[in-house]
Amino acid sequence: MDAQFGAVEGGGTKFVCAIGSKPGDIRNHVRIATTTPDETLGKVAQYFQNIRLQTEIKSIGIGCFGPIDPNKGSSGYGRITTTPKPGWGGADIVGSLSTVGLPIAFDTDVNAAVLAEHRWGAGKDLTDLIYVTIGTGIGGGAVVNSELLHGTSHPEMGHIFVGREAGDESFNGVCPYHSDCLESRASGPSIQSRWGKPPEDLPDDHPAWSMESRYIARGLANLTLTLSPQRIILGGGVTIRSHIFPMIRNQLTKELSGFKQDGLLANNIDEYVVPPSLGTASGILGGIALARNEVAND
Amino acid sequence: MDAQFGAVEGGGTKFVCAIGSKPGDIRNHVRIATTTPDETLGKVAQYFQNIRLQTEIKSIGIGCFGPIDPNKGSSGYGRITTTPKPGWGGADIVGSLSTVGLPIAFDTDVNAAVLAEHRWGAGKDLTDLIYVTIGTGIGGGAVVNSELLHGTSHPEMGHIFVGREAGDESFNGVCPYHSDCLESRASGPSIQSRWGKPPEDLPDDHPAWSMESRYIARGLANLTLTLSPQRIILGGGVTIRSHIFPMIRNQLTKELSGFKQDGLLANNIDEYVVPPSLGTASGILGGIALARNEVAND
Repeated sequence: MDAQFGAVEGGGTKFVCAIGSKPGDIRNHVRIATTTPDETLGKVAQYFQNIRLQTEIKSIGIGCFGPIDPNKGSSGYGRITTTPKPGWGGADIVGSLSTVGLPIAFDTDVNAAVLAEHRWGAGKDLTDLIYVTIGTGIGGGAVVNSELLHGTSHPEMGHIFVGREAGDESFNGVCPYHSDCLESRASGPSIQSRWGKPPEDLPDDHPAWSMESRYIARGLANLTLTLSPQRIILGGGVTIRSHIFPMIRNQLTKELSGFKQDGLLANNIDEYVVPPSLGTASGILGGIALARNEVAND
Repeated sequence: MDAQFGAVEGGGTKFVCAIGSKPGDIRNHVRIATTTPDETLGKVAQYFQNIRLQTEIKSIGIGCFGPIDPNKGSSGYGRITTTPKPGWGGADIVGSLSTVGLPIAFDTDVNAAVLAEHRWGAGKDLTDLIYVTIGTGIGGGAVVNSELLHGTSHPEMGHIFVGREAGDESFNGVCPYHSDCLESRASGPSIQSRWGKPPEDLPDDHPAWSMESRYIARGLANLTLTLSPQRIILGGGVTIRSHIFPMIRNQLTKELSGFKQDGLLANNIDEYVVPPSLGTASGILGGIALARNEVAND
């Protein structure tokens, strides 16, 4: 058996825990409901304490919903900072696992996902890529020069300004902070709010999808012009509706092609905007990838 | 005398050449008018051939207007790709200097500037910063994890979407590719076109500056949310009008503060958006910094 690592995918509705080493070697999956921080994180710590009685693991990687403080030197390191989720503002994720006694890596869910795709998936052999999740919220993580992009803390790509599409002027969006950011206008809840039905109940030919693909393309155009990545990976619940990939690609081509910069797109558009090749496992594999990076040369 | 390096700052109206090693040690400045590529680049090559008769230089760094192809492995390496400037599309900048017989570094003007500010200026001791120039055009370069951001080729931050500010709906912008990108709505020529006077002729209390600062703040908000830098350096002709710095800072605070992410701004806003500390020398010093990086350990 390969050396084993712990992984946590921390989300607003559940915390998924597992151990493993790579795609195809993930075991002991459990799902813990996200209730209070004490209860949820207590169960996560208990999971790893139990695991260690049976299996040696070298480190734990946590990809968590945010915003978070991922800076080891900071007084707030290891915590969720501010979140509209009741009780979770300031929750000490890393501290709650200190009783486990293992090295811990802590990052955003989307940075974990992009790291896994970079190591094993659609970003393998690339140096620069972006992972964007479009679901209940919208967030993005990036690898630049083969390293995770953090900057001061971590990007908040879901909150970039995208304006209002023609015919959508009267909709005020769903983000509590901005009416005209990408999350406000293209997240799952924005579709529900605008059309009265959740994305999974809207047929492929519903006008919601044309509008959705235009907003996403505008967001991806801005990310392309800022980071010039080799590839953008689109995950999250909304993008399970895979008919929107061709729509997004067509619209993004229009957004960028007027600006004829040779070389801005390394691949043709079909290879530029792609689903995660690790599928829904990119989250938990992100935890594994973070854990491996935390201990040298794994 | 410290080891000497060559530098070229290639612009749409002039190519500035010099040799030197660092701030305070720049010599033999010449300005060569940008006419045809053959004539201009011939004079640049001649300059360095003459210099080498008197002074040993180790390498040459070129920061050039773009878009360019900076990828050494590419068939188009060393060239300007597409540009509205007549005759310069495809111009072979690096090839034209091959007769000089020195190692050559080739990058965008803004990547050169951000590199110089990172090495010696307002980005010293930082790992993540952005340099944005606001002048005839708008462009941006970035350092991420202490390395230049290239991705596929180089960013085109001036072309991110910023929409139209209230009261500016009828102005169609000046960018040939996008009516609503940052360059289209906030470059020097857009000010001239909208108000009938160039920026240098507009008094500090002219309404142009309030609108200008709102567009710039919106662009900087998007760059902040995508790259989470520690600092943004604003250069270029428009920002010589330094009264707009407080206006931009106030507006950017509004754009970001609604979204209360602790930690997204490492510094207070006065230290977050700053002018280049190398002033107008950041361009030629960028060439020196590129040249130094080209030969190991300099």
